[in-house]
This record gives sequence, C-alpha cells and structure tokens, in this order.
Amino acid sequence: MLRHRLLAALLAAVPAPAAPARTPEEPAIALRAMGSFHVGGREAVVAGRPVREVVLVPGGVSARIDPNGTYQVEAMYVQYHLPAEQRGAVPLLMWHGGGLTGVTWESTPDGREGWQQYFLRRGWATYVSDAVERGRAGWAMVPEIFQGEPIFLTKEGPWERFRIGAGPGSYRTRTALPGSQFPVEAYDDFMRQVVPRWTTTDAAQLAAYRDLLRRVGSAVVLAHSQGGLFAFRAAQTEPGTVRALVLIEPSGFGEATPEALAALRDIPVLALYGDHIDQNARWPTIRQRGLDFYARLREAGGSVEVVSLPERGIFGNSHMMMDRNNRAVAQVVQDWLAARGLWR
Amino acid sequence: MLRHRLLAALLAAVPAPAAPARTPEEPAIALRAMGSFHVGGREAVVAGRPVREVVLVPGGVSARIDPNGTYQVEAMYVQYHLPAEQRGAVPLLMWHGGGLTGVTWESTPDGREGWQQYFLRRGWATYVSDAVERGRAGWAMVPEIFQGEPIFLTKEGPWERFRIGAGPGSYRTRTALPGSQFPVEAYDDFMRQVVPRWTTTDAAQLAAYRDLLRRVGSAVVLAHSQGGLFAFRAAQTEPGTVRALVLIEPSGFGEATPEALAALRDIPVLALYGDHIDQNARWPTIRQRGLDFYARLREAGGSVEVVSLPERGIFGNSHMMMDRNNRAVAQVVQDWLAARGLWR
Repeated sequence: MLRHRLLAALLAAVPAPAAPARTPEEPAIALRAMGSFHVGGREAVVAGRPVREVVLVPGGVSARIDPNGTYQVEAMYVQYHLPAEQRGAVPLLMWHGGGLTGVTWESTPDGREGWQQYFLRRGWATYVSDAVERGRAGWAMVPEIFQGEPIFLTKEGPWERFRIGAGPGSYRTRTALPGSQFPVEAYDDFMRQVVPRWTTTDAAQLAAYRDLLRRVGSAVVLAHSQGGLFAFRAAQTEPGTVRALVLIEPSGFGEATPEALAALRDIPVLALYGDHIDQNARWPTIRQRGLDFYARLREAGGSVEVVSLPERGIFGNSHMMMDRNNRAVAQVVQDWLAARGLWR
Repeated sequence: MLRHRLLAALLAAVPAPAAPARTPEEPAIALRAMGSFHVGGREAVVAGRPVREVVLVPGGVSARIDPNGTYQVEAMYVQYHLPAEQRGAVPLLMWHGGGLTGVTWESTPDGREGWQQYFLRRGWATYVSDAVERGRAGWAMVPEIFQGEPIFLTKEGPWERFRIGAGPGSYRTRTALPGSQFPVEAYDDFMRQVVPRWTTTDAAQLAAYRDLLRRVGSAVVLAHSQGGLFAFRAAQTEPGTVRALVLIEPSGFGEATPEALAALRDIPVLALYGDHIDQNARWPTIRQRGLDFYARLREAGGSVEVVSLPERGIFGNSHMMMDRNNRAVAQVVQDWLAARGLWR
C-alpha cells in the first residue's frame, strides 16, 4: 500500500506525457468517413446453468442474470478510416497475429505512428480488425461455446520468441539481440497490447474473415504472423475479392490441394521476413514451411515475392514490425503495391 | 486539382464498399493526429502451473508455452483522434458502460455515425477507451490474477433490461417499447458489441481511469452507465483534472463522504436520462439513487443538472444512446458544454 502511494506520488510528479505530443509533425489527415462495425458469427444457445442475482456496481440495484438463452457469438470487429483523397485502388485490410489485436497496426508501443496511419496518409482506406475472440470482437462462454483453455503470454514469452531478445533466458537480463530495432524501453507498453487467445477457434476466425471479404468486396489483405493462415485460406475460398496478399512473417499458410493452390494463381503475394531468424530456435523452420508453400504456389502458376529485409539493407527487425524502423519496412510494402498498379 | 477530379471520377466508378455507404454525406474530418496507447496496470507473477507444448497454428511449429512468469495486467486501451481545428477547451474522454467497450461511441449498430464522430466533427479531441478487462485492454488469468466468473449477456438480457423491449419476456416476441428509438433491426449488431465482464475488477478499472486522467491532464469525462461509477470516483481523487462530468444514465455514483463530495464542488455535472424509465423494474430505483447522490452533491456546494430527455421533447431513448435520434441527444450534451465555456 505504501509502495502504491509512493508510486502514485512519483507518477503525479511526472509531467503529463500527453500521448499526442509524441506523434510526428505531419500534415493533417483528411477523412471522408470513419467508423466501425462487427461482421460474421452465429447464434449459440446455452441451457441448464443456474440463474444468478448479481449486483453489477457497488451499491447498485441487483440484476437477475440468467445465463441460459441465446448468445450472439464469433463476430469480428472492424474499424475503418477512409481518406478524403483515396489513392489505393481497393481498401487495405490489416489482420493482426496471435495473442494480439488490431492495435498492432496503430501507434507503436513507444508512441510513434503505426502502419494504420502510414497507409492512411498515403491514401489507403484502412480496415483494422480484431479477430474472433480478441479485443473488441469479444469471446464466448467456456466450455459451453468456446472449447479449451485460453493461452496467456508472460512478459518472458514474446521477448524470447519474437526475436527481440536472444531466446530463452534473455528476458531476465533484458538483453536484446545485437542491432535490434524493437523499442525495448516500451516493451511493457507492447505487453499491454497482448490479449488471451485460444487454439480452438480457427474455424470461427476464418469464417468471419471470409464474411469481411465478402462485405468489402475487393481488397488488399495485409496480415501478420497467425493472420497469414487466415489470409491465405480466406483468399482460397474468396479469390475474386483479394487483389494482393502481403504477409508479414506468416506462421501459417494455405491449403495445399491443387484446387486451393490454383485459386491463388491470380493473386500476387509478398512475404516479408525480418532479421535474426537464424539465431532463433523456431523461426528457421517456420520460414522454411513458408518457402515450401510458396514453391508449391509458384508451381501452380502463382506469383510470390519473398523479401528478407536484411538482404535489402534493413536490419534488426523483430517478429513485430512496429520496430523503430517501421516506416522503412512499410515503404517496402507500399512500393510493392504501387508497382502492382494498386496505388495511383 | 484536375488530378483529384480525375481520381474522384475513377473512384466514383468503383462499387463502394458496404460499410461506409451507410454513413451520411458530411464534409471531411481533418485530423491533426490519431493513434492509441495503453495506460495503467501492474505486474503480476504466476507460479506452479504446468508448462505446455502448444501448436499455435495448424501444421505450425510447436511452441513451449510456460504460463509461469510475469504478466503485464490491468492496463486500459485508449484511442485518440485530434481534430485539426480544435474547438473543445480540453479533450473529451468517452467511458463506456458494463459489458461493453469503446465501440459504444463509434458507429451505431445500424451503421450511422456515433458520438465519437459527432464530437470530433465539432472540434473535440476524442479519447475513446476500453476499460480494464474489456476489448483491447485484454484480461488476465483466472483465478490466479482475476477473481470470480465473468458474466456473459444473452440476447434476451439487454433487450429486456436496457428499455428496448417492455421487460421480461419481450425479447421472445421482439416487442419494442412504444415509440422506442432503438434501431431494432440492428439489434444483432448491437449484441455483437457486447463482451464478457467481471464484477471483481472495479478497483483495477478505477486505478487505470485515474492514470488516464493524470496522463491527459485536463478533460471532460463523458460516461455511460457503469462508467458513471468510475467517472465520479476518478474525479473525486483527481478533481483538478476534470473540467466537467457528463453522465448518461449512470448506474453507479461517487463516494458520499464530506471530503469526497467536496472534491466535486467545482466540477459541473450533467446527468441525462432517457425514456420509459417508469415502465422498467430496476430503472426507477437506479435513477432515484442518482437523484439522492446529486442532492447530497448540491448540499456540498456542487452543481448538477439533471435532464430527463422526454421532458425536453426527446422521446423513446433506451439505456443505450446509440438510438435513431442519437444526434439530438448529443446536441443536448454539446449545448450544455458550450454553455459552460468548454467549447469555442
């Protein structure tokens, strides 16, 4: 308690670090419209659970909460910002990775502009989503509707697995990989972005992503990590809606049947990989599985460009791309999309 | 300029994406900056749980997930949009109610602009947050960090308790209250916005709201339902930061000690109530507890204006204010703030 008070006193003494002060001086962003919606999901019925009388706020009026009934579950949250001067040929859908939400694409943990603002400033209509079960999508009752236990990430986890530090034990000493671009002083702020995840909800997540593609009609999909799995698979059943796929260190891939590979034939693919992959226990295998999938896709007539950022002279990127040089990485994506006629 | 017109002509030929088509024709929103951050929270340590080998994506590389270690928990998510031409004297913080997230303030369930856009278009810097445990704030391991069971809302619940329908049984027949302004055809979309909540995390939520006030420095707080509890209590310990309190059907109130009441003396308060309160089982009591608290606040020298919308000729509002006439209700708030010199 004393410690809390001391901490409060310390915090009170710090001059108010108003978040906006840290954003760069750039021209205004002009929006034609902005807003949000939910898409997809289904109804689920629960029966046989006891009714509870619950006081929802201290001193409040007790409410009878009957958990039996119909739930609206497994929808996805989407927020859009539409620039006044649109230069992207189609909207840019930004799909986050596992244990994360759409916040990945917003301001960086150290308060700089993220890829959402980067692409918006270049005239892309951005659609940032929270997948089923994450963030503003919400999650459903366990075990009646969702199965299995959620996974929570410790602060040790991403530091050691996302190539910020040099593997197991590196969080204890806060040792970052040499030349790391991750803003390590804001690592706690990055960990505030992490949310629980399940491993049992892939089908529901994929279904909602497909619903989003059908709703938007035509789009470029930019996906990070686990989002790669959903991007490839959603494109395989909704190929007419996807104009290009940009994968940032995808950890999952598409179906490899001849029909599923053929569906991706006319969709150009860019796959980006960061630094220090060979120093990590898991990432060489994850990358190799990607390279194997891209090879099969090329054999089926597809077009895949694989970019290893260090080979382009862009060093130090972790598995997250919200690193200090996030704009340099975004530029690679922007140039690739422009070269494919998707930006004018 | 010609280039802009050509582009506009080209874009006009493109079939419009689904969601934005429903937003009204209004001038562009010019933003000086936009972004997001997390604020508040603490570290928590978990020990003694088994380590799991987990395959996080189908066909993926197994990861060793050790749930033992340090977690960053109980932070709050905040997204800000800063208008190029700022007319609000201070930022407007928008705090949602129970079982909900900041989505309350964004587009309405039927796709119209919400209060976030309404106030942004009038030159208010808006800060829309997700309280601890909700949405993009994330939630923590149960029972190691969070205590008790979360509450999930059935589709029957809000329909019958939020004065959309006429109480128990009204969801089955989808009977709305006479003259209801709730967009009932979009009720499923409203239910997609609902997320699980606990009743055991109030202290953590309040702490994060206080951290937000200290970070922003000076603000108007606009709070809905459960958010009223946090707005009053955060203002009571950080009175210097709060310029005005606007409560939309608050379901919780402040501390009633003489010191706590005195802290609110210089903060003007507006409390808004919608329609059909007398037809509901719980709302007359919730409103009366508010009226009792406001009376004590006035006795302590505070200034509280209570507005019953029907008495202003604004009929049919449910407990949510994202009803069809949401702009008319927002106008009451806007006029009240302007009359207090907080908008120029």
